[in-house]
Amino acid sequence: MNYPESDLILRLDNKIPSYDVSLNGQTKFYTLCNILLDSAAVHANKYQFGYRDMQKENVYWVLSRFHIIMHEYPRMDDQVKVETWPKGVNKLFFMRDYRILSEDGRLLTTATTAWLVLDGNTGRPRKMEENYNLHHFHVDDFHAIEPVPDKLPRIKEPDRQTHVTARYSDLDINKHVNAVKYIEWVQDCYPQELYETQNVKEFQINYQAETRYGEKVQIRIMNASRRDPFEYLEGIRASDKYVAFRARVLFGAF
Amino acid sequence: MNYPESDLILRLDNKIPSYDVSLNGQTKFYTLCNILLDSAAVHANKYQFGYRDMQKENVYWVLSRFHIIMHEYPRMDDQVKVETWPKGVNKLFFMRDYRILSEDGRLLTTATTAWLVLDGNTGRPRKMEENYNLHHFHVDDFHAIEPVPDKLPRIKEPDRQTHVTARYSDLDINKHVNAVKYIEWVQDCYPQELYETQNVKEFQINYQAETRYGEKVQIRIMNASRRDPFEYLEGIRASDKYVAFRARVLFGAF
Repeated sequence: MNYPESDLILRLDNKIPSYDVSLNGQTKFYTLCNILLDSAAVHANKYQFGYRDMQKENVYWVLSRFHIIMHEYPRMDDQVKVETWPKGVNKLFFMRDYRILSEDGRLLTTATTAWLVLDGNTGRPRKMEENYNLHHFHVDDFHAIEPVPDKLPRIKEPDRQTHVTARYSDLDINKHVNAVKYIEWVQDCYPQELYETQNVKEFQINYQAETRYGEKVQIRIMNASRRDPFEYLEGIRASDKYVAFRARVLFGAF
Repeated sequence: MNYPESDLILRLDNKIPSYDVSLNGQTKFYTLCNILLDSAAVHANKYQFGYRDMQKENVYWVLSRFHIIMHEYPRMDDQVKVETWPKGVNKLFFMRDYRILSEDGRLLTTATTAWLVLDGNTGRPRKMEENYNLHHFHVDDFHAIEPVPDKLPRIKEPDRQTHVTARYSDLDINKHVNAVKYIEWVQDCYPQELYETQNVKEFQINYQAETRYGEKVQIRIMNASRRDPFEYLEGIRASDKYVAFRARVLFGAF
């Protein structure tokens, strides 16, 4: 892959915070997801298609799919470099990729996201040809992860189930559960013992419906097997049985 | 108060992250607490008494008391300046203060913390005269909040109770619930409706015992009254009835 010298690649220096460090000294996986999405927000603001810019046009960004591969984990107090760039449009999806590198340039994380632009009135995707200029901003043929993240399957027969109730700390400015909180919920389905020897190696999530304050979400889990080492998870709103998210996670030693 | 031009005041520029923004666009209170304590960790590392330095001496820092006053809340994507400095020793407490200022210098937050240095073998406080040189580093007579944070009272007759169970996401590198997670738990005792018009104005917490993975903590709450507008909270480990923390919080409109 050719590394383009484009102004459209944002580069940020980030210090790994001392909180949100896991019991083994590695940054928590969901915290890295927060760092990635925060870099997207910084970039969108820079090119005038951030949250507030979109609000003026009565449209808003919705994260639809997220795929992250961990090559190595940064550790407490490390400095890392975060890179992000928009890759243009794939059907209705606005694609954006990310890399996290160590201070001396080792590749720690690669990730890709697929976003929708929804209309504030209808809640339906709005086409990109309208009066904002998102389609001018993209880096061609440079991928952290090339494929558009998969649509994940429903879980027919879960091996186990748990549940969580959306609290104040889960909410964001839209009064919905924050996208990365679903990832935190997924991580909380696994016990301390797992994290003593393993961590998330690969993760994919589809966002399908929002969750609001006080809503109970059932999490159905299909265990990894010899045939398929991924764990599959599905979060279902208890009140109306809508699927809030589907995810799959692969654990490995680091 | 005289503002000293000391090298011992650390000044950091922080961008308020786009996640952890409350439903009203203000940063979540507990996120500001994370930013404060992270600045303390950066400063301790700089002067070789950080987590890893202390580990070599078989001692560790424990946050004992925390008092924060909010004058104004930063908002999503704001830049803020964080200042922190050690204030020397008060009995067994190592004192450290903090201020958060807006980009143009308005005072947003003042805070003070009281820390203990515990011996890795005995778990008891170790005296400061020993072979590390913490007592060389302090700024005299410069206070964000002058009084040492109070010892908070036990709650005899709670008005209501709730509970929480410690999850993976609550843990830090010591396998205990992270100090700021208790603050998040306190905030989660209050409903979305409260945060639509109010936010935390003043907060104090005493840390008394650690909580481990899977431990259930009962939270007893004494409501504000006309005589005392603070809400008082007490977190009690279900297994052995030890008090994990005591806190008091004052809400106000911002």
